[in-house]
Formats: sequence, structure tokens, C-alpha cells
Amino acid sequence: MSPLIVLTLLTLASADYWSERAKLVNSDSSHAIGSSIVLTEKEQQVNKVLMSHKLKEYDDGFTDPHSFLPSIHFFKSKSGIEASPVFDFIRKLPKGASLHSHDTALVSFDYLYNLTYRENLYGCVVKNRLQLHFFDKKTSGECEWELVEDLRSQNSSFDMFLKSQLSIIVDDPTTEYPSITEVWNRFMDTFGTVFGLVTHRPVFQDYFYQSLKELREDNVMYLEFRGLLPQVYELNGTTYDHMGVTKLYIETLEQFKRDYPDFHGARFIFAPSRNVDNRTVEDYVSITKELKQSFPEFIAGFDLVGQEDRGKPLIDFIPQLLELAETDTKFFFHAAETDWCGTSTDMNLFDAILLNTTRIGHGFGIVKHPKILEEVKKRKIALEISPISNQVLKLVDDLRNHPGAFLVNSGFPVVITCDDPSFWGAKALSYDWYLAFMGFASREGDLRMLKQLALNSLHFSVMREEEKCDALATWEEQWEEFLDIVLAGNTISVNQIL
Amino acid sequence: MSPLIVLTLLTLASADYWSERAKLVNSDSSHAIGSSIVLTEKEQQVNKVLMSHKLKEYDDGFTDPHSFLPSIHFFKSKSGIEASPVFDFIRKLPKGASLHSHDTALVSFDYLYNLTYRENLYGCVVKNRLQLHFFDKKTSGECEWELVEDLRSQNSSFDMFLKSQLSIIVDDPTTEYPSITEVWNRFMDTFGTVFGLVTHRPVFQDYFYQSLKELREDNVMYLEFRGLLPQVYELNGTTYDHMGVTKLYIETLEQFKRDYPDFHGARFIFAPSRNVDNRTVEDYVSITKELKQSFPEFIAGFDLVGQEDRGKPLIDFIPQLLELAETDTKFFFHAAETDWCGTSTDMNLFDAILLNTTRIGHGFGIVKHPKILEEVKKRKIALEISPISNQVLKLVDDLRNHPGAFLVNSGFPVVITCDDPSFWGAKALSYDWYLAFMGFASREGDLRMLKQLALNSLHFSVMREEEKCDALATWEEQWEEFLDIVLAGNTISVNQIL
Repeated sequence: MSPLIVLTLLTLASADYWSERAKLVNSDSSHAIGSSIVLTEKEQQVNKVLMSHKLKEYDDGFTDPHSFLPSIHFFKSKSGIEASPVFDFIRKLPKGASLHSHDTALVSFDYLYNLTYRENLYGCVVKNRLQLHFFDKKTSGECEWELVEDLRSQNSSFDMFLKSQLSIIVDDPTTEYPSITEVWNRFMDTFGTVFGLVTHRPVFQDYFYQSLKELREDNVMYLEFRGLLPQVYELNGTTYDHMGVTKLYIETLEQFKRDYPDFHGARFIFAPSRNVDNRTVEDYVSITKELKQSFPEFIAGFDLVGQEDRGKPLIDFIPQLLELAETDTKFFFHAAETDWCGTSTDMNLFDAILLNTTRIGHGFGIVKHPKILEEVKKRKIALEISPISNQVLKLVDDLRNHPGAFLVNSGFPVVITCDDPSFWGAKALSYDWYLAFMGFASREGDLRMLKQLALNSLHFSVMREEEKCDALATWEEQWEEFLDIVLAGNTISVNQIL
Repeated sequence: MSPLIVLTLLTLASADYWSERAKLVNSDSSHAIGSSIVLTEKEQQVNKVLMSHKLKEYDDGFTDPHSFLPSIHFFKSKSGIEASPVFDFIRKLPKGASLHSHDTALVSFDYLYNLTYRENLYGCVVKNRLQLHFFDKKTSGECEWELVEDLRSQNSSFDMFLKSQLSIIVDDPTTEYPSITEVWNRFMDTFGTVFGLVTHRPVFQDYFYQSLKELREDNVMYLEFRGLLPQVYELNGTTYDHMGVTKLYIETLEQFKRDYPDFHGARFIFAPSRNVDNRTVEDYVSITKELKQSFPEFIAGFDLVGQEDRGKPLIDFIPQLLELAETDTKFFFHAAETDWCGTSTDMNLFDAILLNTTRIGHGFGIVKHPKILEEVKKRKIALEISPISNQVLKLVDDLRNHPGAFLVNSGFPVVITCDDPSFWGAKALSYDWYLAFMGFASREGDLRMLKQLALNSLHFSVMREEEKCDALATWEEQWEEFLDIVLAGNTISVNQIL
């Protein structure tokens, strides 16, 4: 062959090459969450704004990996996130629903801390941990309770100690939490400290009201949250059991909806401790039935909580859970919140699926189970992914290695959730959304992904069909408004101007 | 319904439940690498030995996560691995072929270090890095070369400095390598220091001979390795170009095969730097053609090397690579050795596939590309997975989060490889095999996985068909012998008794 012919052939081959390449790249990205969305012209303009910010941040990270926020521990990345224009964009974006968070870790840390300035709050230290409780007068018993007000005025270091007891935030998480064990101990201890503070009836209701308010301010319109239904108390000794506590939630929710009619409501998943015996689970079953019967609108279903690696797996409670399933109770099981593979923890995935779970909490280990991946996709069982929680609770360091990256790029049914923002200094949903968008998605992942995540959150909620339609209609209005705000360069949040 | 009927129904439902569960679990594990293998009775007995050790280690880790070796940095876990009975088992197991390692980082650190005791070795320090070179007499030029022997006797701290220059091992990798940038700088510098030491002709041949010996002692029977074909020199000034150097490899290999007739050979992948211009890649093309023509048996194909995130991507060299493809050159491209998604680095996957790559080096980012996953499975393109390399070069901390866990459990075509064992204190293949077996596989993953990995390594090699048959026949003999050794409780390695 003459050199000229060779050259021509190569040029032809080369032309083919580029068209084949474009096909392959398109085929790959067509699997990602949101890829089926076709953006309107207005959305395309807004997308340009978003992507100009995202690509700058992403490419700066590629050039200098130190600066890339999803690869940094949240305790260290938080201020950087708050300075990011992408975060600002996401805060303003109407995000739909928040579908995985826990009753006593819902509000922002600042609000939680400010609750300790309330009157009649007493503290005492048991085994190096602060306990908090409201009393109408000085009380002693197992513990020498002292007024927090006095402790604060008498000891200048008390306040720092108090703050340390209300979150798991530390200066150097790598050293202080060498493994999942230490961070989970601290995490559970924090729930313990917060308990007596937030189960005082007036605080309990204010706390829940504030949780809704913070979500709404973060442009979230609907909530499904998990809770233990702990006993709530008045100063006078009156207490509320599971039924009474549920009523308190509903009252507060109704008040909130009166104050903010654009908020689309909340539902509750009864999620008591998994670290119990079978007899206790039988009690859970009875309580759930009673709750469902009395509050069919508010009660979404059932789950079990606590560190999976150490608690009892679902397999221990199959007869009880089957009985509950018979009553059409929806399940929202935590499963595979773990790095292990083939242990009781990730095997929870199998029981969750067999028990026909409506969604899966975390499902971190799902990528190691091909059949479960297939089932989840086929049956459209949403995975509730909480990037910050998984990072700070030591499942993964660099969020680019989070299984969410696989799930998002392969189009699995995913919703982004916040778990326990209170305890690590986050607030509502936007921090997790930011990290999912920057850390899980491809460099090219754009507004379509964010839009799909918002739509997913409504779609995978357990709102009734007519509620969903209503919510979607409101969301679409908010979305249009949001697009206008971005194009106008306006920095006011959607809800602030409603 | 009477309580009795309800109870009976539940018992029935429960029975169904357990059979459905067994089906789901089996269906899930039937995807894993090796799951199609049916173990013989003898293998089942050996498997029991293996699993008794594995389950103890695995379950101890589940109880105390601090102790689980795949989640610890290799610099800290190495001694623990060496004490593991699972590691001992894997060392003895005939592992087939080693398919991804680099010319000047093949041997164990101890052997490399001992080379610095050879006569006529000179050192000098340029920009804080030690350079090494053999000269027949003291030489000066840009550098003040001094005999290593003198430096060693004159300065008690020299030896420690020297050792630090021959590997990337440090006491505290978290602090000393805050990001991929620092560790890659040190890694590339280490290649620089080693260069003048190992390109002296007698050392060059001894080094390669020793590499083969260490593989054989590790019960590996065949090698495909990548190299730059650097200029090799004699003390008298004679030098060897790419053709001469290839001849040196072949001579050494022939000698090794004469000494150890059970070793099944080696092939070479020409893999020069990716950080070059198009003109240089044109030269690579010419060199590759020349090599293939002269040494059709020894030359396996072509690749490009260097930190992908910083070097040139394949897309920059398409016309040149298409020209090479026309000559039926096999490609073994590094691709997606990265945490990023949608950058030039992981997009190398697309070009590797379009250029019909025979295997993929690393492919760490492949899990974020569903279409590429599909193609790799369909076309049976093996992924060369190097767990330790990816950990120490900062792609992932806890190997349970390595994409290998997904790939192994979903039955992708995987081979376990060692990359540059010299520089991180590993040796041959067993350390990486151990970490893949303990860190990637499920708790239940057993001898079938290990057997499949060995078979994969031979199957995905580029031996000719008749060579493969020969190699497989030898491997099967070794395997039988290995089974007998395990059952006899014998601790002698297979090759030691041949």
C-alpha cells in the first residue's frame, strides 16, 4: 500500500472512531439518574449557571486534589461547602422531600444548643457523660442534678463541655475515631445526652416545629422521619406514652401547616431499637398496629434502629415481622449500613427485600450483592443515601468511593437523605445534596440529576396518590420560581419570598 | 380468624419465607467469581481448612474492627498479614500468572537494597533525591558522585537515607501523604533513584532473574510485565538500546527456564511514558513494530504509563494508536486509575475499549461507567486489579470499599495483580491475593474464588493456545500437590519440593 492510501484509510478509521466514541460515551451517560430528562430552554440557561460553578470547583479539585470537598471529612469541609456557589444553588433549589432522618437528631446544632438556655434545665454527669433533664425544683436521686444555668455561671469550661456532649464533632476525627466502634459509641452517647433535653414536652414540640421550619427554609416541602416514640414528660410529672407522643407530633405538624400552608406535611416511621429480644419485638408489633389504627394518615410504617453491626439482624425477628406485614404495614428497613460483606448486617438486605420493604435505609453494602441490586432496580425500592452520615460514621473517607457513585451513575432508585444532621453540624438536606452532586455524579452530571433527585424524593415518599399530585404541582411552581430566581441572579430562597 | 388459624398461616408463611430466602441468597452468591466451580471431595476438605482460618479472622474483625487487616494501610498491616494462616495458605497455593507489574519495581525491597552493596556503585544527591550509578572510576560532572561504600562508612545515617530513597514506605502515611499528589511525587522519585542502580547490565539481568525467582517461590508460573526498555549500560560505556535490552530480558528468561524448567515463561508489554508529545508516540509506534517483528514471542503488546491524572490521556494519541492497532498489536492500557469521574483519566476507559484493549490496567473508576462495565463483561476484557497499589497510592483507604468488591461479587473478569511490590515492601503476588480474598470477597467467599483467580490469570494471559494448555496441565499438577500438602498439614511451598 502506498503511504498516501494508508494515510487515507487511517483518516477514515479515525472518523469512524470519533462517531463510535460519541456513541459509547452517550450510551454510558444515558444510565445516570436524570439522564432521561429533557431540559427546557429556561432550564438549559439555569444549567449553564450551575455548570459554570460546578466545573470550576471540579476542575480545581482535579488540579489540586487537596481542595476537593467531597474527599475531605465533613468536619473539615463544612466551611468550604458553605462558601461554594454550587451549595448556594442547591440550597435554593426546591428539593422535594426529606425521607430519612431521626427524631432527636433533626434540628441544627445551634438550635439544639440554644435549648440548653431554657429555664429549669438540670444537668449531671454519669460515667463522664452529661445527662440533661428538666425539673420544677432541685432533685436528687441516683444523680446530683444541678441547674445548667448555675453550672454555666460557676465554671467557664462548662459550656465547651456541654457543646461537646451535644454532637460528635471533634477537631481531629482521624485520631479520635480510629474505627467505627469509637465513633458509634460517641454517637449513641450523644443521643443519651440529648434525650432528657428534647423529651420535655414544650421542648419536644418546639424541637419538631423547628425541624420542619429548617427543612422548609432549605426548600424542602415534606418529611418522612423515623423515631422511637420516647416517653415525653411535663414538669408536673405528667408523661405521654407512644399514643400521646404521636398526638404531640400531629398537633405540632398541624400548627406548622397552619403557619406555613405551602408545607405538604410529614409522616412518621416507628423505628425502635433493634437491640432487643423477641418478646420486645412482639410489643413493637402491637404498638405499631395500635398506632396505625389510630393515626392511619401520620404513621407511615416500621423500621428498627441502632448500629447494625452490633444489634440484632432482621433474621432474628422474622415471625414477628411477618405478622406485621400481614397488617399491610410498610417497612423502611435499615440494611447494610456496613463495610462488611456476608455478615448479619448486610444480610439484612435479603430480609428487607423478602419482607417487601418500601425503601431501604442506607444500603451501603448493596453493591456487593448483584441479585439485590437487580431486585431493587426491578421493584423500584428506593435507597436512602446519606453521604455525610456514612462518612462521619466511618464507612468511607473519600465520598468519591461511596457506593452512591455507582448507584447514581447506573440509575438506581436513589434519594439523598440527611440521617442525623444535628450531631455533625449539618442542617436539613442541602449539605448532603451538595456532596452527592459533587462527589457521586460524573463531572458532567448536571441540573437533570438534581431535578430527578427532587422528583424521586416525592415519588418514593408514601404520600397518597392525590397528595403526591398536589405536592408535585406545588413543587413545579417552586421549580419555575427557582429558575427565575437563578436567572435573575437573585439570592433569596424560594420560601423566603412566598 | 381464630388465633390458631393465624398461627398456622404464619408458620406456613414462615416456611415459605425460609425457602425463598435460601433461593435469594443462592442466586446472589451465584454471581461471584468462582461460584460455578464444583469442588471435588479433596478440595472440599482443603476448603474447610481455609475457611476455618478465614472465618476466624473475618469474625474477629467484625467483633473488633481495629484488627481487620484489609481496612488498615498496608505499611501497618504487613506484619499482621505475614502472621495470618490465610496468607500462609495463599502463599502455598499455585496462583498461575502475574499479569500487571512494572520493570523496575518487581523485586522485593530486601533484594533491591542488597544491590546497593555491589562494587562500583556511586551516589550523589540532586534536589534532595539520591541518584545512583555504577562507574568504573570516580566521575564528576553535573554531580559529585561518591562511592556508596564510602558514604555508608563515613555517615551512620546514610543507610537509613538510602533505604528511604528506595521505597515509598513511611511511618505515618496519613500525615506524610495528605493527597495523591504527594505520594505520586515520592513514587516517581523512587523510580528515579532506582533507575541508575538497576540499568547497569549485570544488575539488570540479576534483577530480572530474581524477579522471576521470587514469583516462582510465591508459586506463580508465568509473567507478563510492563516496561520502558530504558537504556542499559556496561561499566566500559557500552549501552543497549530497546532492541538490546529486550535481548537481555530474553537471555535472562531463557537462563531462568533452563534452571527451573517448571516455569512457563514471561512476556513483555512495551509501556513508555504517557507524558509525551505526539511525535514521541509516533516513535513508540515504530519501536513497537520493530520489537514485535524481531521478538514476536516475547513482545505481548503496548501500553502507556505514568500518573493518569497528570499525564496525557489516550484520546490525545488516537491516530498513532489506530496505526498500531492496524499491525495487530495487543493493547493493555492503564485506564481509570483514579477517584475522579468524567475526567480525562477515567475517560481512558472509553478509548481503551474502542481500541479493543486486551486487558485493562486498574480500571478503578469502571464502576461509575455502566456501559463500560457491560462491554468488559461481554467482551471478557480482564481487569488487572492491584489492591495494595490502589491503597498506598491513595485511591482508597479501606479495601472493603475498593471497587474490586463489586467486581468480584458480580463475577467480572478480574485478575489480581501486584503493580510495584518493590516500593511498598510487598513481594510477588500473595499479599495482593490475600487482601483481595479477605477484603473484596464475601465472608463466604472460599477456595472456589482462589481457584478461579488462578485459572483467570492463565486464561487472560496472552499465551498461545498450546502454551496455555501446557501451563494449565502443569498448574493442575501443582494444584493437586498443593491440596495434598494442605491436607498433610505440610508447610513447605510447592516449588520448594519440586
